[in-house]
Amino acid sequence: MASSDLSHPGVDDLEAGPVLLALADENRRRVIAELAVWPEEEGLCASFGLPVSKSSRTHHWRVLREAGLVYQRDAGNRLYMRLRKEDLDHRFPGLIEAVVTADRGTG
Amino acid sequence: MASSDLSHPGVDDLEAGPVLLALADENRRRVIAELAVWPEEEGLCASFGLPVSKSSRTHHWRVLREAGLVYQRDAGNRLYMRLRKEDLDHRFPGLIEAVVTADRGTG
Repeated sequence: MASSDLSHPGVDDLEAGPVLLALADENRRRVIAELAVWPEEEGLCASFGLPVSKSSRTHHWRVLREAGLVYQRDAGNRLYMRLRKEDLDHRFPGLIEAVVTADRGTG
Repeated sequence: MASSDLSHPGVDDLEAGPVLLALADENRRRVIAELAVWPEEEGLCASFGLPVSKSSRTHHWRVLREAGLVYQRDAGNRLYMRLRKEDLDHRFPGLIEAVVTADRGTG
């Protein structure tokens, strides 16, 4: 199996608490904002230039995945991520757009 | 002075991180959802029946106030709270509505 042991919550198991907690971190919001630009596309995890250590990045990917914000796919030695836009928009209408817009306003 | 030493961040100092962190807690979201029903009205802090200790409640009020989600007013021995709807809608368009809607979907 290509997607190995990366577990993802089902759409009905998405909860506002973990999603908001995941989004409270600036680096994780930055990743979500980048993914939200082309929500149909997968991003290579290594391509997000977060100013943190490798172990911190790994932690951030896990928080995003376990909250249900992203699908992660392990392709051998490359890890890809995609925003779960459809699931999120279904479960939390307007939330991702509002969060992405919030940070745009800050800059 | 009626409003004693309760400090509130200015509208330009509101940041997405603390706001989302404050909203990640279920009890605090419940308070925000109640205040959002009548955003022009003050709520008596004691009237929110949170299932937590008095010291936890006090902590929750402080987190909400310091993140800029509510205005708190100390009227002698009563403490009032009001949603900073206008400031929040200005700074984070659609966010509060999305968060309140998210929890409604859960129920």
